[in-house]
Amino acid sequence: MDSTQGSAADGSVARGPLDGVVVLDLTRVLAGPFATMMLRDLGARVIKVERVDVGDDSRGFGPFVGERSAYFASVNAGKESIALDLTAPADRAVFERLLGIADVLVENFRPGAMDRLGFGWADVHARHPGLVYAAVSGFGQTGPYSPRPAYDMVVQGMGGVMSVTGEEGGDPVRVGVSVGDITAGLFLVSGITAALYERRATGEGMMVDVGMLDCQVAILENAVSRYTVEGVVPGPIGSRHPFIAPFAALRTGDGRLVVAVGTDVFFADLCAVLGVPELVDDPRFVTNRDRAQHVGDLHAALEQALAARSTAEWLTDLEAAGIPCGPVNDVAAVLADPHVRARNMVLEVDDPELGPLRVAGNPIKLSGYPEPLVRPAAPALDADRAALLAELGLA
Amino acid sequence: MDSTQGSAADGSVARGPLDGVVVLDLTRVLAGPFATMMLRDLGARVIKVERVDVGDDSRGFGPFVGERSAYFASVNAGKESIALDLTAPADRAVFERLLGIADVLVENFRPGAMDRLGFGWADVHARHPGLVYAAVSGFGQTGPYSPRPAYDMVVQGMGGVMSVTGEEGGDPVRVGVSVGDITAGLFLVSGITAALYERRATGEGMMVDVGMLDCQVAILENAVSRYTVEGVVPGPIGSRHPFIAPFAALRTGDGRLVVAVGTDVFFADLCAVLGVPELVDDPRFVTNRDRAQHVGDLHAALEQALAARSTAEWLTDLEAAGIPCGPVNDVAAVLADPHVRARNMVLEVDDPELGPLRVAGNPIKLSGYPEPLVRPAAPALDADRAALLAELGLA
Repeated sequence: MDSTQGSAADGSVARGPLDGVVVLDLTRVLAGPFATMMLRDLGARVIKVERVDVGDDSRGFGPFVGERSAYFASVNAGKESIALDLTAPADRAVFERLLGIADVLVENFRPGAMDRLGFGWADVHARHPGLVYAAVSGFGQTGPYSPRPAYDMVVQGMGGVMSVTGEEGGDPVRVGVSVGDITAGLFLVSGITAALYERRATGEGMMVDVGMLDCQVAILENAVSRYTVEGVVPGPIGSRHPFIAPFAALRTGDGRLVVAVGTDVFFADLCAVLGVPELVDDPRFVTNRDRAQHVGDLHAALEQALAARSTAEWLTDLEAAGIPCGPVNDVAAVLADPHVRARNMVLEVDDPELGPLRVAGNPIKLSGYPEPLVRPAAPALDADRAALLAELGLA
Repeated sequence: MDSTQGSAADGSVARGPLDGVVVLDLTRVLAGPFATMMLRDLGARVIKVERVDVGDDSRGFGPFVGERSAYFASVNAGKESIALDLTAPADRAVFERLLGIADVLVENFRPGAMDRLGFGWADVHARHPGLVYAAVSGFGQTGPYSPRPAYDMVVQGMGGVMSVTGEEGGDPVRVGVSVGDITAGLFLVSGITAALYERRATGEGMMVDVGMLDCQVAILENAVSRYTVEGVVPGPIGSRHPFIAPFAALRTGDGRLVVAVGTDVFFADLCAVLGVPELVDDPRFVTNRDRAQHVGDLHAALEQALAARSTAEWLTDLEAAGIPCGPVNDVAAVLADPHVRARNMVLEVDDPELGPLRVAGNPIKLSGYPEPLVRPAAPALDADRAALLAELGLA
């Protein structure tokens, strides 16, 4: 990586390419706060504008340490907070001044709510033409379901991802992390940064409209072409690949491991490591097409061999043979993994009240920007009011 | 949305904020091509540099229409293609000229492969300092696992997502779409667009290094804080929320529906719609904490009521009552959904050989840029060689 390092406008060290970008963040819970966490990791300054007295709903979500939400702390590290009542004239005036210093506004109210407050895209764009206005909602700003409420599980169900996840022949299963929220947050960040890129040439902001359901459709990938071309409605198939075999999570003597064998050469190597070279010449398993057709028999034969040793022992030999493989880690194992640690994917939040809270790091590694190993604390509700009012000349 | 519309440098109509950005795409299969598809949807020009004779491996992935891969066509619509042997002097010279017109290079070889070809970050940056150099790999450019091969299922297993997905008490299950590849592609796009934003001010490119495993860790969200704070290793819990109830996929008379009830008021509304108002006063179900503690009893009581009617009938009444809810759609239902259609999330690829292939649309909706309803065809291998050589002055 390059050792060049950015310098911020005020002479301090820049944290990332979005150094100097001011984000006004009206979002709550996950899709929006996840997006603004990424923007902060990329160098932006994020000012949370929260509801008076209550704040971001996720301040009330467990797990708690004392009165503090570790959930909230993990997604809002390093942001500033001001509590404003956007229906009260004095607070509306403060918000208008904040719009004047902001480059990006992010909101996740139901479509129409910001318009009713007089802070919809058209109004704000007229007064602040350079502002990028980003809205993330369950169903987007247009279309028949637009006014409806949505949560992660609702869009996971409606968008088809749940229908292809689960045991073969079994019930559809929710993805155990909130991919409904998180993919929406990820698409939103791409839209915002692309809009900032254009604005740097034109001076003009644009509106970015991301709906969570749309994002679920966008990640269906081969399920769409399989249905469109073959007319087959894909269902859940457990932990195997639909066309490639053996490409699955298989049982060992003490747990599971994933093998991802996409070629005949890798298959021969796998059989050699497992001590079952005779499988290579078995007419059921000669080509990938054969193996996929007899996937039940194939998995049974491989698991019979795998039962003799532990996951760790097998992985050592499979890795040595260059076969794509890995363990099925639980969260404890993930956070202890030496590679995950070496990649700075486990950070600490420096919060005196919460103690050393571990959180996931930023997976976007950029030359020229050294990664912090510690994130600052998440703000208490309204913690930055005095400093912000002073900055705006309102103190 | 605003009706302002960008104009491209050549006077044609701009397709998005990345109009004028030239992306050189050496990636194969999914994470990289998904990212460059997004860059193209945002307005960039994408030139695929493919292996001679073979091309992107996914040209060989089903489903097929005749000899053509619908899988390949769905992720590579509207890109250009040139086949180059990066070990052959003549082709290396062509590639060097392409670097000269490119703004972004994206590659997904194993770390070190581009260096051995003389096209690693340090070499390329020295000759083309403005180029943004983006690498996506299984484990990233650094750390002990960096040289290892990886596939979607390997990182889903290693990164912990599989360990929290599946039936309660059952086996871990793969997410039925390739979230290992796709989230890496999404983080990569954010890194690339942020790097382009900085470059517009400084003229200097940077390296963007994204590892698929890191991205799986980054989406673990509350599983990390639950483990860190409570010491509980989260496991699969089927289709319900860990703390909120009823927030689950529940059985009806003819299928399933999702209800997402986060407050006591919504719970009372739900019980009224289902005709079981007595549940509100049941001591097991008074507060969310009570309901979460007795979630098995709660689901059983609700499913007993839901069995009386079909999913469609219940959804009509639940929606009318404003209760967050939705169907569990299969892929056929998703693609037929009127809202998904209204949001332009089902596009056609205009490919004479493949016929009308339906693909997922772009979920990033931007003011000023009308959305195409049809995407151009994906390129045949090396289809744009002559035009590119002419453009480079090499014809």
